[in-house]
Amino acid sequence: MQHSDIVSSSQQKPFGKRNYPLNCWWVAAFADEIGRKPLARWLLDTPVVLYRSEAGEIIALEDRCPHRQAPLSAGKIEGDAIECAYHGFRFGAGGRCLKVPSMVSPPPIKVESYPVREIGPIVWIYLGDVERIDAVPPPPVMEWMTDPAFVIRKGMMEIAANYLLLKENVLDLTHLGYVHAASFGIMDWVNPPTVTTEGDTVTYTQSFVRSPLAAGYAMSLGLEPGTPWNRHGFGTFLSPAAHESGTIFFDPDQPDVPNGRTFFAHLTTPTDSGNMLYFFVAARDYANDAAAMDHFAQILLRGFKEDEEILCKVQALSTRQPRRGSQGERSVKADAAGVAARRIVDRWMARETIVD
Amino acid sequence: MQHSDIVSSSQQKPFGKRNYPLNCWWVAAFADEIGRKPLARWLLDTPVVLYRSEAGEIIALEDRCPHRQAPLSAGKIEGDAIECAYHGFRFGAGGRCLKVPSMVSPPPIKVESYPVREIGPIVWIYLGDVERIDAVPPPPVMEWMTDPAFVIRKGMMEIAANYLLLKENVLDLTHLGYVHAASFGIMDWVNPPTVTTEGDTVTYTQSFVRSPLAAGYAMSLGLEPGTPWNRHGFGTFLSPAAHESGTIFFDPDQPDVPNGRTFFAHLTTPTDSGNMLYFFVAARDYANDAAAMDHFAQILLRGFKEDEEILCKVQALSTRQPRRGSQGERSVKADAAGVAARRIVDRWMARETIVD
Amino acid sequence: MQHSDIVSSSQQKPFGKRNYPLNCWWVAAFADEIGRKPLARWLLDTPVVLYRSEAGEIIALEDRCPHRQAPLSAGKIEGDAIECAYHGFRFGAGGRCLKVPSMVSPPPIKVESYPVREIGPIVWIYLGDVERIDAVPPPPVMEWMTDPAFVIRKGMMEIAANYLLLKENVLDLTHLGYVHAASFGIMDWVNPPTVTTEGDTVTYTQSFVRSPLAAGYAMSLGLEPGTPWNRHGFGTFLSPAAHESGTIFFDPDQPDVPNGRTFFAHLTTPTDSGNMLYFFVAARDYANDAAAMDHFAQILLRGFKEDEEILCKVQALSTRQPRRGSQGERSVKADAAGVAARRIVDRWMARETIVD
Repeated sequence: MQHSDIVSSSQQKPFGKRNYPLNCWWVAAFADEIGRKPLARWLLDTPVVLYRSEAGEIIALEDRCPHRQAPLSAGKIEGDAIECAYHGFRFGAGGRCLKVPSMVSPPPIKVESYPVREIGPIVWIYLGDVERIDAVPPPPVMEWMTDPAFVIRKGMMEIAANYLLLKENVLDLTHLGYVHAASFGIMDWVNPPTVTTEGDTVTYTQSFVRSPLAAGYAMSLGLEPGTPWNRHGFGTFLSPAAHESGTIFFDPDQPDVPNGRTFFAHLTTPTDSGNMLYFFVAARDYANDAAAMDHFAQILLRGFKEDEEILCKVQALSTRQPRRGSQGERSVKADAAGVAARRIVDRWMARETIVD
Repeated sequence: MQHSDIVSSSQQKPFGKRNYPLNCWWVAAFADEIGRKPLARWLLDTPVVLYRSEAGEIIALEDRCPHRQAPLSAGKIEGDAIECAYHGFRFGAGGRCLKVPSMVSPPPIKVESYPVREIGPIVWIYLGDVERIDAVPPPPVMEWMTDPAFVIRKGMMEIAANYLLLKENVLDLTHLGYVHAASFGIMDWVNPPTVTTEGDTVTYTQSFVRSPLAAGYAMSLGLEPGTPWNRHGFGTFLSPAAHESGTIFFDPDQPDVPNGRTFFAHLTTPTDSGNMLYFFVAARDYANDAAAMDHFAQILLRGFKEDEEILCKVQALSTRQPRRGSQGERSVKADAAGVAARRIVDRWMARETIVD
Repeated sequence: MQHSDIVSSSQQKPFGKRNYPLNCWWVAAFADEIGRKPLARWLLDTPVVLYRSEAGEIIALEDRCPHRQAPLSAGKIEGDAIECAYHGFRFGAGGRCLKVPSMVSPPPIKVESYPVREIGPIVWIYLGDVERIDAVPPPPVMEWMTDPAFVIRKGMMEIAANYLLLKENVLDLTHLGYVHAASFGIMDWVNPPTVTTEGDTVTYTQSFVRSPLAAGYAMSLGLEPGTPWNRHGFGTFLSPAAHESGTIFFDPDQPDVPNGRTFFAHLTTPTDSGNMLYFFVAARDYANDAAAMDHFAQILLRGFKEDEEILCKVQALSTRQPRRGSQGERSVKADAAGVAARRIVDRWMARETIVD
């Protein structure tokens, strides 16, 4: 098929086949989810247990006792160690066995221990090839998350869809007028944005000039719904794990001075190739008193549930019956950023030397 | 094993392997199920969306947007088109893309469109090789369905069993005295019927002379239960999709004049190789005022649920543990029609040129 | 890895692959579960129906009609025969077809019939190669079950874990102080026991001298919790199906005269490679009035549910994600009996000539 507006992209990988890179920093949890009780989480098809040491450091271990495969998270924290609920084997922060109750001295066995980085509200984890960790891009830092000018709200959803579906979702906002017509009410995101690929990142930008404000936008700015206003939208695929986006508002009569900024992080971690954890963080440097932020968070949650609903339908359909024959999905100009992102993920995976 | 009464038939195909022909007209729905809202249905492992055009024509499309695999049935009808709930792509009656909101003119993409035929209360669909549609027998017409002398009742059940199990069920009525002893109470269907195979149809016939009437039969004829009466039963495998059957009653003292006719259509459509939609239509040209027909329908439903129960048990057992070794199921003379039907289905499938 | 205290044992067989011998007597049911109504049970991936003849003999047949695969257990008992609920085929005690309602004489078809042995409260079944039944060890007899000096309590649990996990559990009691700290309260089973392998059995023994009695032990002996007392614990892997264990108490001042004996049978039958039926029998020759035995049974049930909980977690984890790479589970000295048992099971399976 020859048509300048269509891209024939490779379709989704079959369900069950790994569709995410291992050699990548992914989000394990929000920092405030991890304390002195074990937190069990499946990340990249791997059982992980997370807890904090007495000094407050985050410890991440494979959630499987090497003795008889009981999940360590069923046990309890003793000092900086975790004790298996089955036979009382204890493992220290680095994964080394510290005690086997039936033995005088512990044997040289250990459980996998994973590197973690706590950056602002986010805990990143590396589950890949440790030898190659220095060659892997570090977890992205989004400074607005800790900038006192911003107030943040955050949340997490377990979604029965592969993480790439959410990547595409946040890279093509022409779905706003359909999926989110009733929640966000942003009906002017119609044209394909400008897309720029730079190395392994891809960014879209879209500017609106004297475009009528949706009710939610208007309320936050203290304006009437429908007020013609300027705004600049953008979004960047930072890594297979992280997408950052934002909207900056400008009074059309003073088009160089931002009068409000909203930033988002859309952070996705595959639990397996067909399911994800979706961590989101939203922030505003205006209209950010508690009541306004609560209202904002409420609308966001409603919208993200709309995304979840449609993504789960896509996943369920393509899992139950993959498309017949060789015909891939049909992409259009508005998919340019999403298609670029898929190619970047393919490159991440091609770089890996781990053989499953 | 040599025994004149036993047929060693090939056993059921393993669960998951396709056991139905694609090049065949199957029932998609009852005509009154389809209107101006999308009806989603899995038919032959294919997601299908059905709706009516403004002029009332039935439109059947693959229920999957070619852009990002959202089910079109999650969207809405606009005129004769259906609009995807995700990005607003619109597809017309023939499946052609009519609109992509982010584009000036629609791209040359399309969704599969399927031939349908509305015949009386039944909507037939063809999901097979379009090039071969003319070589495929047309959907069977059962004239009694629209004959004003008859009143019909109909229903549909989703049954967790493969459609061939129901085919066999309606082709061997020696199960009446066991499965339906408490509902239909027909205890005289004991002997194997006469079976006639003609091309790709197979018919059984069974005549009862001065046989005591079951309570339900007697009530419909205004007679005492147990009254000796004549009746003629028959059933025909018309296609893998359709079985037609009936009972004609005769006063034994006037054995040439029917005094009541009951017809049935047992229409099965695989959703996949282990599940079916079972559409049934029943009709009488006597005792067919609304109250009598309601009572009749109530008894039928009770009996069909008895069939469902036993068929689901058979399916569950043979799915969980297919029979070991090479030994097939053991068939007897009463299975002659069912065994012939399996062979006919095998021929339908052998004729197909589609390679899965 | 070289370390005198560690054994690198082969890890669990992958889920779905058969991990039990067929040529072995397994427990089908307790004797009092089987009567004149069909009892349906999946044993070794095989559907079995059990009932008693008019004379009280136990009959065990494959729970699948050879005609159309309906489970015979859905039917009813007629004399010594079972009648299929679908078409009324009847099968006698030996599995031979006795009646097909649509035929004058029954055809030479049959359903599998399995050898059973009723020994005290236990019904054993043999589902393996009948040609080799004489070469297979007979079901073990545990005489205390019918010894009038003992009173027994028994129960059965369906556990979503493979039967080998329970084998290992009862062969390594160092889990007592962790899994059962709150129920049994036996905190002194810390050291690896003495282990003796003899042919295809393996036995551990552990003696405690003037060790403080757990509350439950003390109460049964009429002593204060914590009273220093002698006791001798042991357990024997008798076959893949049966484990026998016990505790014998001695007054430390009269260390040659037992003052109480408790015996257990832990009987496991795989329903499939990831699930089991767990039949347990417990007996005491002291403190065995009804009230004391009820109290004892209550504590046991609580403890066995603790085992179930941890075993199901182990099974769920290793099913969802088998360990990566070639690294097996790590065993320690306390696992010696469990590791020996796995090897014995491997030998049982290697002896089989049945090819699945």
